[in-house]
Amino acid sequence: MHRVAVIGAGGFAGALGAAIVQRHPSLELTAVTARSDAGIRHDDLYPRYRVPLVMEEFDADGVAERADAALVAYPHGAAAPVVKALRERGLKVVDLSADFRVSRELYERWYQPHEAPELLDEAVYGLTETHRDAIAGADLVAAPGCYPTAALLALHPLRDVAIDVVVDAKSGVSGAGREATGTTHFVSVAENVNAYKVEGHRHRAELEHELGELRITFTPHLLPIDQGLLASCYVTAKQDVDVEALFEEAYGDEPFVELAATPPGVRDVRDTNRCRIHATVEPATGRILVFAAIDNLWKGAAGQAVQDLNLMLGLPETEGLA
Amino acid sequence: MHRVAVIGAGGFAGALGAAIVQRHPSLELTAVTARSDAGIRHDDLYPRYRVPLVMEEFDADGVAERADAALVAYPHGAAAPVVKALRERGLKVVDLSADFRVSRELYERWYQPHEAPELLDEAVYGLTETHRDAIAGADLVAAPGCYPTAALLALHPLRDVAIDVVVDAKSGVSGAGREATGTTHFVSVAENVNAYKVEGHRHRAELEHELGELRITFTPHLLPIDQGLLASCYVTAKQDVDVEALFEEAYGDEPFVELAATPPGVRDVRDTNRCRIHATVEPATGRILVFAAIDNLWKGAAGQAVQDLNLMLGLPETEGLA
Amino acid sequence: MHRVAVIGAGGFAGALGAAIVQRHPSLELTAVTARSDAGIRHDDLYPRYRVPLVMEEFDADGVAERADAALVAYPHGAAAPVVKALRERGLKVVDLSADFRVSRELYERWYQPHEAPELLDEAVYGLTETHRDAIAGADLVAAPGCYPTAALLALHPLRDVAIDVVVDAKSGVSGAGREATGTTHFVSVAENVNAYKVEGHRHRAELEHELGELRITFTPHLLPIDQGLLASCYVTAKQDVDVEALFEEAYGDEPFVELAATPPGVRDVRDTNRCRIHATVEPATGRILVFAAIDNLWKGAAGQAVQDLNLMLGLPETEGLA
Amino acid sequence: MHRVAVIGAGGFAGALGAAIVQRHPSLELTAVTARSDAGIRHDDLYPRYRVPLVMEEFDADGVAERADAALVAYPHGAAAPVVKALRERGLKVVDLSADFRVSRELYERWYQPHEAPELLDEAVYGLTETHRDAIAGADLVAAPGCYPTAALLALHPLRDVAIDVVVDAKSGVSGAGREATGTTHFVSVAENVNAYKVEGHRHRAELEHELGELRITFTPHLLPIDQGLLASCYVTAKQDVDVEALFEEAYGDEPFVELAATPPGVRDVRDTNRCRIHATVEPATGRILVFAAIDNLWKGAAGQAVQDLNLMLGLPETEGLA
Repeated sequence: MHRVAVIGAGGFAGALGAAIVQRHPSLELTAVTARSDAGIRHDDLYPRYRVPLVMEEFDADGVAERADAALVAYPHGAAAPVVKALRERGLKVVDLSADFRVSRELYERWYQPHEAPELLDEAVYGLTETHRDAIAGADLVAAPGCYPTAALLALHPLRDVAIDVVVDAKSGVSGAGREATGTTHFVSVAENVNAYKVEGHRHRAELEHELGELRITFTPHLLPIDQGLLASCYVTAKQDVDVEALFEEAYGDEPFVELAATPPGVRDVRDTNRCRIHATVEPATGRILVFAAIDNLWKGAAGQAVQDLNLMLGLPETEGLA
Repeated sequence: MHRVAVIGAGGFAGALGAAIVQRHPSLELTAVTARSDAGIRHDDLYPRYRVPLVMEEFDADGVAERADAALVAYPHGAAAPVVKALRERGLKVVDLSADFRVSRELYERWYQPHEAPELLDEAVYGLTETHRDAIAGADLVAAPGCYPTAALLALHPLRDVAIDVVVDAKSGVSGAGREATGTTHFVSVAENVNAYKVEGHRHRAELEHELGELRITFTPHLLPIDQGLLASCYVTAKQDVDVEALFEEAYGDEPFVELAATPPGVRDVRDTNRCRIHATVEPATGRILVFAAIDNLWKGAAGQAVQDLNLMLGLPETEGLA
Repeated sequence: MHRVAVIGAGGFAGALGAAIVQRHPSLELTAVTARSDAGIRHDDLYPRYRVPLVMEEFDADGVAERADAALVAYPHGAAAPVVKALRERGLKVVDLSADFRVSRELYERWYQPHEAPELLDEAVYGLTETHRDAIAGADLVAAPGCYPTAALLALHPLRDVAIDVVVDAKSGVSGAGREATGTTHFVSVAENVNAYKVEGHRHRAELEHELGELRITFTPHLLPIDQGLLASCYVTAKQDVDVEALFEEAYGDEPFVELAATPPGVRDVRDTNRCRIHATVEPATGRILVFAAIDNLWKGAAGQAVQDLNLMLGLPETEGLA
Repeated sequence: MHRVAVIGAGGFAGALGAAIVQRHPSLELTAVTARSDAGIRHDDLYPRYRVPLVMEEFDADGVAERADAALVAYPHGAAAPVVKALRERGLKVVDLSADFRVSRELYERWYQPHEAPELLDEAVYGLTETHRDAIAGADLVAAPGCYPTAALLALHPLRDVAIDVVVDAKSGVSGAGREATGTTHFVSVAENVNAYKVEGHRHRAELEHELGELRITFTPHLLPIDQGLLASCYVTAKQDVDVEALFEEAYGDEPFVELAATPPGVRDVRDTNRCRIHATVEPATGRILVFAAIDNLWKGAAGQAVQDLNLMLGLPETEGLA
């Protein structure tokens, strides 16, 4: 049994991470920490996850005594110092924030000054389907953002032929985090849908980092659902391609990618670590359409993080994941 | 007072049409008909609309005796014969179906053999903002589909410069009509979102008809809301344009088009005849992004139809509409 | 035209109040004030209401110069001083808070020390259906709470025979106000329902005040809807009664109460000032079941307030209300 | 490994039953049958459940060859002949319909003539918490209805003292089944709530059967959620009782009953086999309030059925259940 701590277990992604670790047959959840919820039992805050532990204040030494690895689910900026402290104490870390996903230059352009740039070299981008081998050998993995996860899985098989891409992405509200704001108020969201950050969302940094030079538009929308994310991708290719073959080649053996004959709904993957994809060519235009659905808290956050952790610890990649 | 009948008042669009006519200061609702709901009081089926009339079987002579004009809210195919019968009896007609929106050729390619092609010549496409004068002089107006309404209002100011367009459209379930199917079952829709008819939706015919030659992708999505439709449009232009100026020029005086400084939500226009639009240029790509929100049952159907009727009857265009 | 100010137009109830006054044929909306939203245009915050005024800081003299009457939509406690200031300047006031609904004793037991107890004598409880004459002659009316409105309308016809009552009430989230909290976060509410304040909700004070001695249980529940409130009432009567006759007698002539043959849904009254009621006797137990549905923001708040104001100003009771 | 067939795997409860059996460490899912969906792969219809089997037409001999036990998830009336055929072939059966839950007399009063009354003697009511020993020895168990499950778990500890009970129950739409009707149409349910069958719901039969003589009112309501059921119970007791002690005594050791310090939300038990209960005494009236939340598809149907099956097969009661 590998001993695992979850740092930031009061937020949506960290809370699910704790739940997945708790049920995992080869992992032992030894500590959960929280910033504002320290002192509260996790299963009082999230009854359905049934993690019977009291959340603690974060203390690097205390965590290091009890854990061999950690999931860190702090907001960007707050994560870097914690990750650094845990790495200094020898823990393998999967960080769910943006802090170690991209180059220092891209990070500082979209976010803020980086607080632990010296760790960027060892950090591996945690999208298993495209960086599996590097993840398996890594001590620090940066789990991708929810939007990039869906978009990158949709676009990866087309990386050599795509020249112009529109990603119209739609996410449930849990992606906005647990903070109560005007944006997350039920009355703002119910019976509503809207685009946001249309002049440039920070997740764009990851897309640029992973896809390189490409004319890509990325527009997020907020949906009146709690969990789920759909990336609708519109791709102009520089040449005719056999879309079905490209996706089959890329994902035919992937345990968490499903190729579907019809456009996926986010319900199809709810509470699972799956990405369900439908790719087709629009007859009228020849444009390639790819629809990728994930659960933003699972494959888009905590599930992906445990998938990474499984690899890092030498466990079967799918263990403990639905 | 102009006497108006609503044909097909049991469906969502027709029911709202009846309600708008009922409250309209210059219109008198003299008859409501329904196919499967004949004999039922309208306000038993739609209490909040409070139309205190019993729905009747359709009878062209009976309707013609009591009405000078009619809204016809039948499914495509079923509408044409009814429209023909009413036109033969001299009524002005706004038809909410697809039967008179496009050329015979386009219609028969996307729908079925046309049952009253001889009326196509007199039919005017009822998007007021682009066909106002023709509507004012028409006896038969074809109210646009909900998807085309939002997409065309978003794209109209860019018609001379757009060379490549992606319309990612999202609609509430009332757009699928009142029929109970697997698709409209609450459990299918709740906590879900998915694209559908990605190989070609019939509303495409209207877009082609109105926009002419243009590389355009149109993809509808179903949202877990009852009313509301958002068209997110991604436009590549052949030259740099002053987007703000183009939209201000096109819509500055339009009573039912609102130009907004931020992306609109469908809640912003719920239960109104408004189309709320935000247009901007994405810095990273130069692509023009246009977001147009409507209430699919109002500006996308019954509200638009009454706006048309107001013009056809020489009434103020905004009368009786919110 | 009567000149009306709306104080607290940034909250849900005040915002709707401003919209209703704005469209009202005999009222002129001359000022809207807000506490935290002063300086913002009302139609930027609530586009669909289309009130084209900038919200101001509250200033009693400034308001009094421009208005003959006011709706005050402040939280309890904050309302009393404002109401007092406006009454001192001669304005007729409808207050939507709890501050003037009940006796000082009841108020101070459930809320806090009263800041303007000297006004309690002139305040009239604003449930039109039970206090119509007093409202018509009043200068200060306390619009009822949303829960009591539905419960009292359900129970009023049974007031002489009921000996034991359970009110299981269910409300949409707008009833909790615009403040962003853990309770109103979309993710807390979606796909959820729960009772709250089961040991005693403050609205109980109103029920006791209006119904007098009665064994009554009142339990609120929060629903995943934005607007709408249903009170399911279970009444043991001291004798057999003709329920249908009692309700017909009480409400047969009421313009805003609908008696329905089947249990009402809150959709039936959405965005209207109606209360829709179904009363029946359960065969197995003889218990009287009454279901009363309202829109909590209309009949449960702003619509009721304008109904009161109409009476106070000598206007037709239904004017400007749907 | 015990071989298990699921009969009626195309409906909501049967589909989940198949999924639970499929993942169960000691059960092997050997066949899934469906009436209208035969020939379809289960994971095409329910992707997130990931049951990779084609649904077959029901054939008793074919099923008996491959299975030692079966879950039958047919509508009432249709279930009895199938259960009979399987019992004749020696399979242990958990039936999820109403056909074997109550006495023939009660069944025929609320439902229809019974098609296999000779099996009623051996049938055991499958609410584990109150009939554990009988279930463990049974060959035919009738899993309780979703409403009775929540109500009976709420009321069981009070069975000796309750003299008057009101159960105000609220259910998500999946409880109404997969059939597409006006009632289950998204637009009917969204932003709505209403009571139904207020003159007498068939689940009343079970309550009467299990609780015996008691003045009990039971009123179901339909909620705009997909899964989840809350029973709010209002109990007048014949004497003062220590509510906390009674519930602790009844459920302190129950693996699937959680006693909570605050009223439960249905989210707290979503996708789990738990029943979460809060019981308290209302100070103002002395009435006992009990709130019991379940997932109607899990503890209210398929989860309970597997809990029963575990006992019948001598497996740990909680195996394979969340």
